[in-house]
Amino acid sequence: MSASPKLQGRTLSLDDVADLARGCAFLGSGGGGDPHTAFMEIEAALADGNVIELIDVTSLPDDAFLAPCGWIGAPTISAEKLPSGREALQGLRRLESISGRRVDAVLPVEVGGSNGLAALVLALRAGVPVVDCDGMGRAFPESQMVIFNIRGQKACPAILTDDKGNCVVLETVDNVSEERLARSVAVTLGGSCHLIEYSAFARDMKANALRGTISDALAIGRSIRIAREGGRDPFEALFDALKASRQFDKAGVLFDGKIVDLKRETRNGFSVGRAVIDAFGGGQRLEVEFKNENLIARLNGEVRALVPDIISILDRETAETIVTECLKYGQRVKVVGASAPQALRSPQALAVLGPDAFGLPGPYRSIAELNGW
Amino acid sequence: MSASPKLQGRTLSLDDVADLARGCAFLGSGGGGDPHTAFMEIEAALADGNVIELIDVTSLPDDAFLAPCGWIGAPTISAEKLPSGREALQGLRRLESISGRRVDAVLPVEVGGSNGLAALVLALRAGVPVVDCDGMGRAFPESQMVIFNIRGQKACPAILTDDKGNCVVLETVDNVSEERLARSVAVTLGGSCHLIEYSAFARDMKANALRGTISDALAIGRSIRIAREGGRDPFEALFDALKASRQFDKAGVLFDGKIVDLKRETRNGFSVGRAVIDAFGGGQRLEVEFKNENLIARLNGEVRALVPDIISILDRETAETIVTECLKYGQRVKVVGASAPQALRSPQALAVLGPDAFGLPGPYRSIAELNGW
Repeated sequence: MSASPKLQGRTLSLDDVADLARGCAFLGSGGGGDPHTAFMEIEAALADGNVIELIDVTSLPDDAFLAPCGWIGAPTISAEKLPSGREALQGLRRLESISGRRVDAVLPVEVGGSNGLAALVLALRAGVPVVDCDGMGRAFPESQMVIFNIRGQKACPAILTDDKGNCVVLETVDNVSEERLARSVAVTLGGSCHLIEYSAFARDMKANALRGTISDALAIGRSIRIAREGGRDPFEALFDALKASRQFDKAGVLFDGKIVDLKRETRNGFSVGRAVIDAFGGGQRLEVEFKNENLIARLNGEVRALVPDIISILDRETAETIVTECLKYGQRVKVVGASAPQALRSPQALAVLGPDAFGLPGPYRSIAELNGW
Repeated sequence: MSASPKLQGRTLSLDDVADLARGCAFLGSGGGGDPHTAFMEIEAALADGNVIELIDVTSLPDDAFLAPCGWIGAPTISAEKLPSGREALQGLRRLESISGRRVDAVLPVEVGGSNGLAALVLALRAGVPVVDCDGMGRAFPESQMVIFNIRGQKACPAILTDDKGNCVVLETVDNVSEERLARSVAVTLGGSCHLIEYSAFARDMKANALRGTISDALAIGRSIRIAREGGRDPFEALFDALKASRQFDKAGVLFDGKIVDLKRETRNGFSVGRAVIDAFGGGQRLEVEFKNENLIARLNGEVRALVPDIISILDRETAETIVTECLKYGQRVKVVGASAPQALRSPQALAVLGPDAFGLPGPYRSIAELNGW
């Protein structure tokens, strides 16, 4: 099928993409990479007259073939190791040659961080629409931490491509092996590369994907911008947008203070570490641990938020999210929590991406419960 | 083409395979893995009435499609991590689906060690002949250390398969990247897996492969056995066989003594270390350094043999080769050297697999020159 004529969706402007980037950074929970490079790629493509079409998954025929995509590796590395711009399309063409059919539309594996925009970059290069859904509603450090895996889709064939033109095709017996192999390939290829995985027909994506998450991210980013432009508190606007979203209902400020200590290292292909934030008046302290993404927040030692709920660290004036690799000593921040999509909080989902999966003290308790929201 | 009816070669008996295993172990220069497991697989297949046909590369039509194969990883691991038996054929079928054509015959990437027999195992499972040639005339620790690379063939598509059924297809921009990725995949898959690489048409293999190396290995192994059966010195028989071989002309005993120290560890997917051997009368000491394969032998600190020449450590009574992972304190051994095939001693070849490639003191000097043979 030639998708575009039939699949009239919404066209995204450059302003929309800037708002989306802001929203994706927030949903990234500190991870998924800084959207800045992807934003510049999109800016250039739009300036050349290309168009991004955002469509609803329900508008697709059941046999439309969809490719979730994104980047795998440590965000600290991808911030410095720039893409060639050819990785995504090379991977898409390889998937097509393996599957023997064209890809009709693409979507982000994870809407959080830079990976929320990666699908737009690929859509522009391939001339296909972006589907308004994703597999996480946020970002997670490992590939199998995705609703597609939890709901029984296969990750493989998974296709990794790098800036030099190398391509690796994984065909594994399970989705955890796919993550392990993809991670070691990403490390060997320099710490960051493009990944297409969990390709499927629209029939499965209608049943499995988290819907409307790109629209949610866009609304979040826009609300912050409009509040700032209108002189309104951007945090209030953020919370209003989250409450109005399809996937994220409970949200609030976990802490307000200054980063007084930061430990961050690249280990086994991940950015791993901890940020310590002290209240301005003193006495109160919040600690946030991360593995690419922020996983747990403790207030004076007491757990206040746990993965998969969203924990993001924002500039306390502008409400711009500071991703893990951009955290610095002395930054004045508000730490914001938001509830994860309901689909990520089932017992089956928590077994894959809850506190236990990270070796954190569990069981999972919701951010609403932990904070009395 | 259906190869078998046209390509009448020599049929190998189980006794031939036992002799071949002994010869491959010698040519392995300590590496390539212990042939014991592969021998048992072949024994079982021959008992079921299957036949191994060994053919000359010149008997093949130019457009016959050939698959070099072997195992990648640390021999210390493959000695304990047994194969499922399905790895090789899974890889072959994947190569066929990528290439869109059947494989007509197989050959060892390296004749040395267990990998000399690995091609026989695959031949039996796929019902195709084995071509009497290989890419090294010995064993080397890294994939790109092969005449196919030196002479401009492409390693990719390279196909890695493991005992669980995982499959990884590499399509890299150069052959060194193929080695790096194959190595990290092998480590992730448990430290050892099957690899098909440098597939090519017979036209290229006629120009590039080291010919007759399987016959050479078989003659080496047989000469040792027959000498032992006839009460003759097996080392004399070994040297006669090497002198009569196509690829290995100079050979001799480098040292006779007892292993008094051994350091061996698994590092980055390789068995790395050093054996120290003292003469029985005292005073003299030989040190052999290895990275899967024995790379350099120093007599009282003075270099007596250097990669790519063959350095093998043999039981001093039986002349059975002791591979790297089977070396033990107290073994009474003779260290035997033999000249590498001429094709491995060109400046182009030495740049890829000579002392420099291992960070050893160079330049390369031949074993004949170093020992006045």
